[in-house]
Amino acid sequence: MPLETAPLLALTAGDPAGVGPEIIAGAWRSFFPTPNDLATSAFPLPPSRPLVFGDPEVMRRAVAVAKTDARVVAVDSVSEAADGYPSRFGASTIPCVPCCDASASSVRFGEICAAGGDAAFRSLNRAIDFALSGEVAGIVTAPLHKESLNLAGHKFPGHTEILASRCGVSNFGMALYLGPNPAIASPTGLGVVHVTLHTSMRKALEQVTFESVYEKCGLIRRFMETILGREPRLGVCALNCHSGDGGLFGDEEIRIIRPAVEAARADGLDVRGPFPADTLFLDAKNGLYDGIVAIYHDQGHIAMKAFDMFSAVNVALGLPIIRTSVAHGTAFQVAGTGTAKTESLIEAVRVAALFASKKRTP
Amino acid sequence: MPLETAPLLALTAGDPAGVGPEIIAGAWRSFFPTPNDLATSAFPLPPSRPLVFGDPEVMRRAVAVAKTDARVVAVDSVSEAADGYPSRFGASTIPCVPCCDASASSVRFGEICAAGGDAAFRSLNRAIDFALSGEVAGIVTAPLHKESLNLAGHKFPGHTEILASRCGVSNFGMALYLGPNPAIASPTGLGVVHVTLHTSMRKALEQVTFESVYEKCGLIRRFMETILGREPRLGVCALNCHSGDGGLFGDEEIRIIRPAVEAARADGLDVRGPFPADTLFLDAKNGLYDGIVAIYHDQGHIAMKAFDMFSAVNVALGLPIIRTSVAHGTAFQVAGTGTAKTESLIEAVRVAALFASKKRTP
Repeated sequence: MPLETAPLLALTAGDPAGVGPEIIAGAWRSFFPTPNDLATSAFPLPPSRPLVFGDPEVMRRAVAVAKTDARVVAVDSVSEAADGYPSRFGASTIPCVPCCDASASSVRFGEICAAGGDAAFRSLNRAIDFALSGEVAGIVTAPLHKESLNLAGHKFPGHTEILASRCGVSNFGMALYLGPNPAIASPTGLGVVHVTLHTSMRKALEQVTFESVYEKCGLIRRFMETILGREPRLGVCALNCHSGDGGLFGDEEIRIIRPAVEAARADGLDVRGPFPADTLFLDAKNGLYDGIVAIYHDQGHIAMKAFDMFSAVNVALGLPIIRTSVAHGTAFQVAGTGTAKTESLIEAVRVAALFASKKRTP
Repeated sequence: MPLETAPLLALTAGDPAGVGPEIIAGAWRSFFPTPNDLATSAFPLPPSRPLVFGDPEVMRRAVAVAKTDARVVAVDSVSEAADGYPSRFGASTIPCVPCCDASASSVRFGEICAAGGDAAFRSLNRAIDFALSGEVAGIVTAPLHKESLNLAGHKFPGHTEILASRCGVSNFGMALYLGPNPAIASPTGLGVVHVTLHTSMRKALEQVTFESVYEKCGLIRRFMETILGREPRLGVCALNCHSGDGGLFGDEEIRIIRPAVEAARADGLDVRGPFPADTLFLDAKNGLYDGIVAIYHDQGHIAMKAFDMFSAVNVALGLPIIRTSVAHGTAFQVAGTGTAKTESLIEAVRVAALFASKKRTP
């Protein structure tokens, strides 16, 4: 696919106090594989036309932090950026749609403040506007800081809830996806979706229902089927240790999870479980599964971070738009030092470009 | 230390239907490092005199399965085995204390049956007798099968509860210990203790108390201090995702876990937390911690299995005797095939021998 017609991806710069801008700057050149990259990489990035949503001054500071020689150019419109590829924009020139007010560029690294939260919120909302109108093919988000977001008066736990609210969707999920990686045996990566996510363990226990488990089987199936181009092999975690051990250590497996897995199987999904989470993730690491349904946040996150945190990406499932994200946070403690790793962002761009090229939402 | 005076370790063969006997047979030679092993291994096994508690016929079958040329010799007493090193026993001859009745040797591989459970129970109990009397320095247990154990009329969830009952101890714990391993950065390994273990998630929530968290800090500190010979750096997991996020996702961190960690710190322990479990285990993998307090079973087990299941060992903490164990189960599905990995058993012997040589219980 020539660059002129490659999917246009909105990269939101996130909170200026965090590592978002500098990982975009640091990763930028990787978004444009050279012929040599394409010849030597087993998994080259699909072509895309990235476009930063943020503040041009913040991005210029980030370029300096990341010690690259890219130039940041403010564009008046998405179409100006789109039309600028490949003549004006590419590996050495970053188009940026100004989304923030003047306060963004005065935010200090590591500072929890309303200005940082507001900048992240505005950038995300502009990107959603263009994604919903179809002017960009997908969104890749750099991290925002929840506390700063709240200080700015935006009462959301995070990106996902903002996206769901703007998209008017309630049945959605988050996949954590680890692409081809030496830490796992499968050459096509491993996707994990969570039945419950940002909630207390007590509330999570109440949220494990037949419907929630069944729906998540369908969400991860659709996601991994697009990645793989074939029916994915899915496994479902138990809630309790040893999968409840026949009811001795809890009966949610018998009452809820197994019936939901069986219903999904009856629909034709290649899904098995529930299995003890510790052994299921080990089997997945060894290549026996393409996708996992985890019951609660830490179940999936402990495993995926143990495998390779910095290459994992978050993908919103069930939205009418494509949205991927880095799997790490704002990392305020290292922001401005230029040491933040860019792998997760590059993988997030890869997954967004892949779905955009197939014209499918995750 | 010459072999004549090396610690005498009881190796219980576990359920004859499982992989216990064959991993003992397969690993046997490794228990006696050659001068070349000692010269080339960064972490040679401390000297020990192992002694199998089980059924000699079962062990002979296991030797055939493991395709070794070791000879199994039934001994009449522990002292006969002890005195037989190194003249009669060693790398090529296995002393075995007969503990089982005739039914043990007729148990088929993979068979859930009372005879298998009873054989495992008898072997363990004999080993406990000798450990309590001080005639053996420690116990290393091969896996038993809970269902078979129950069929035989022994109503215990597993080894740990039998040991606790026989030793009259209530405040005890289980450490999962991964020794020096390429999967983790620390050259001295990583120990994990669980605040709650074999129980439902619902009940686990009730068992997370100030006392249980505080006590586990002390148990893992004592264990890792013996391993390291210095004060260990400890981290405590949160119960809830994102460590409760300031109370938004649960308040156990604020009400229970943080006060317990602070009390342990006030005692002089180098312990921090609570931290989100997914990031804490990643920090531990990267060498920032020597020991972790996990709140529930899967939290620690998902991480440790993702790192390296087959080299991890279980260690009973707070018992008056030394007891280590393989971290895997009976693996009925592969029993008799000779494919079971021996790393975990070798590590279990290493840790038992280490504690025995220091004359400390874990």
